[in-house]
Amino acid sequence: MTAYVHATYEIETSLPLQQAAEILAGEQSTGTFVRVERETDDVRARFAAQVASLDELPLTGSAPLPGAVGDPALRRRARLVIRYPLDNFGPSIPNLLAAVAGNLFEIKELAAIRLVDLDLPAEFAVRYPGPRFGLSGTRLLMNAPSGVMLGTIIKPSIGLAPHELAEVVDELATAGIDFIKDDELQGNGPSSPLEERVRAVMPVLKRHADRTGKMPMYAFNITDDIDRLEANHDLVVAAGGTCVMACINMVGLSGLEYLARRAEVPIHGHRAMFGSIGRSDQVGIAFRAWQKLARLSGADHLHTNGISNKFYESDEQVLAAISDVREPLLGTIPTVPVLSSGQWAGLAHATHAATGTSDLLVLSGGGVHGHPDGPAGGVASMREAWASAERGETLDEAYASSSALRRAAERFGAYRGAHG
Amino acid sequence: MTAYVHATYEIETSLPLQQAAEILAGEQSTGTFVRVERETDDVRARFAAQVASLDELPLTGSAPLPGAVGDPALRRRARLVIRYPLDNFGPSIPNLLAAVAGNLFEIKELAAIRLVDLDLPAEFAVRYPGPRFGLSGTRLLMNAPSGVMLGTIIKPSIGLAPHELAEVVDELATAGIDFIKDDELQGNGPSSPLEERVRAVMPVLKRHADRTGKMPMYAFNITDDIDRLEANHDLVVAAGGTCVMACINMVGLSGLEYLARRAEVPIHGHRAMFGSIGRSDQVGIAFRAWQKLARLSGADHLHTNGISNKFYESDEQVLAAISDVREPLLGTIPTVPVLSSGQWAGLAHATHAATGTSDLLVLSGGGVHGHPDGPAGGVASMREAWASAERGETLDEAYASSSALRRAAERFGAYRGAHG
Repeated sequence: MTAYVHATYEIETSLPLQQAAEILAGEQSTGTFVRVERETDDVRARFAAQVASLDELPLTGSAPLPGAVGDPALRRRARLVIRYPLDNFGPSIPNLLAAVAGNLFEIKELAAIRLVDLDLPAEFAVRYPGPRFGLSGTRLLMNAPSGVMLGTIIKPSIGLAPHELAEVVDELATAGIDFIKDDELQGNGPSSPLEERVRAVMPVLKRHADRTGKMPMYAFNITDDIDRLEANHDLVVAAGGTCVMACINMVGLSGLEYLARRAEVPIHGHRAMFGSIGRSDQVGIAFRAWQKLARLSGADHLHTNGISNKFYESDEQVLAAISDVREPLLGTIPTVPVLSSGQWAGLAHATHAATGTSDLLVLSGGGVHGHPDGPAGGVASMREAWASAERGETLDEAYASSSALRRAAERFGAYRGAHG
Repeated sequence: MTAYVHATYEIETSLPLQQAAEILAGEQSTGTFVRVERETDDVRARFAAQVASLDELPLTGSAPLPGAVGDPALRRRARLVIRYPLDNFGPSIPNLLAAVAGNLFEIKELAAIRLVDLDLPAEFAVRYPGPRFGLSGTRLLMNAPSGVMLGTIIKPSIGLAPHELAEVVDELATAGIDFIKDDELQGNGPSSPLEERVRAVMPVLKRHADRTGKMPMYAFNITDDIDRLEANHDLVVAAGGTCVMACINMVGLSGLEYLARRAEVPIHGHRAMFGSIGRSDQVGIAFRAWQKLARLSGADHLHTNGISNKFYESDEQVLAAISDVREPLLGTIPTVPVLSSGQWAGLAHATHAATGTSDLLVLSGGGVHGHPDGPAGGVASMREAWASAERGETLDEAYASSSALRRAAERFGAYRGAHG
């Protein structure tokens, strides 16, 4: 039986919708601008992509993409599903992308063209086994068998000397945090080489592990050229580290997959630069489609943003993203959604209520480091607020019982979308 | 002396422009939403990104990005340059991207945010030597010491059996073409494995080389997972092939760089999927910035589209892209601009006049395969039209002297932007 990939798009066009859909299907399979010799009916029957469904949508009022042709008065919007024979490209994510997300973004007859979902056949999970550690491996390594996983980002993002970094990590570990990560801006530059960070951080973590039986998971940012990824990973693992972070868009889905095949610890998948393909509603790739490829490529943790964040996404979009990451995918083990950006203790109840789960890694940067009582207060506020939410209490009840939360609210309570 | 990266952006915002620029600079260096301990003045002085210049631009009338906040009546547009200390990330393209093209696309205070140019210090060229073969290596390998390089794409894009592929290549080689490439949709799927294509194509090319002393360069599409790129490349080289093609956005800039370090033949860099980040004028990365990274990462050939193409770009944009690729870059050797999409012989004079060069690889797919007299006529029409343009003749003079061009015009003369 032939397997197929179904790709869902939203388009706008001034052409009749069916015609535009067929142009898209043709451009991405057997077509060229003139029919050529050997493009037989048999070739078309076996290899042509087909329009599987087409449903008109209301126009959104967004401006047409630059270069779009056609009478603006005729413009209509539709959601369409194109069916691609898997045999055209095989279960290879790079070759899949050339078909479902290649030149089509440049088609001038399309005033909007956005890949919003992908339905992949099981062959992809055979070739790409997905996360190796996922939720259960992460909980095991951080000794956090239940409840939300609480983390933070090193702040300031860049500029700390190794001994200062060690101090910050010591404070956070003392406060009982589960997870710490490098900022995505903290690479492997001369001002703070990865090797020095590892040497500064790991003894601190081990000392706490000896004391408490629990070592916070530290995600060292190992993002770099492909030929350096493995060495960077090995450096972390050799020092006893339990997590590496990769900026997925910077190393590419292919770089992530390369790393995942070699990873002996979970990969914390950062989504920086996703906005360049994801933010417009007229062009690009929606998070729902993209996160499937990131999970198949091996992301154990995947950033989704959190509610009331400082970025462009609405709470509705964030909650959909969390739900997308938690949705089963071709038998792969669960990836951990990572909530970040503007997160602080006062958001625990709303987040827990809206997601209905504690299988989340919640990162609070400023909300931990900027707490009036310092990181210890910040971690306590997060821990107490989430414990209250998980017990089914109201936010008011949490405020009544947690002084750390009340202190957090003094600084962050009015915070709604301010920036920095 | 400290080195810096200068990144140029176009933004729109309802905030005062200087304030928005500083938010961007802060988000991408030392900032968080609250000032934290250890974010000292010294840290800021050494590591903070700075607004180097800011020039207001007229509004374009494009709609604000989704999630943009602020009073629409206050919205203004500006071009700004941010200066990043190289020490923050070092000369690593993935880590550079996290700074100059990371979370900033998601900032809600920005109603447009587009990276339009990058000015990189020499340290990048030390780490990334750029193309290994470039223009001169390509001319040498295809035995085309001067004049435009003429190529085509295998059509139909997918679906040919190996013996049919061999027939098509034979026709094209007989017609004296310089260059042939797989379509970007032709990966390594079960219907046409790379190994079978190599086995079908190379004997044909060698037979022509023995006959004429000139072997057309065939760019086999080796796009695939990182761990397969090298084996795919080796398979082509072992069979005597002289070029490999990679879809840069599918393997990532990092994948391209990984391949370039190992490549024994030129890399034909396809730009499929570029539209997902490049087409919007409100978000993403402009070709001018992106092509610098692709060249540093080792693209020997780089697609720019051609004039009168079937995609969204205007001739002005295409000519700027060709000029960008030909501009010197940190001492790297020249990358060959690849003109494609809707190209046929009738465009030779306009292209030559507008670019002022023959150091171009011009690909004509339908224009060769769909010529009324078949590929032989298609290649002859391209060759004769370009030779005429290079002699300084007018298009009318070419029509008078070239029957192949006149025959091409019977089919493509009225073609302006039709699709397929």
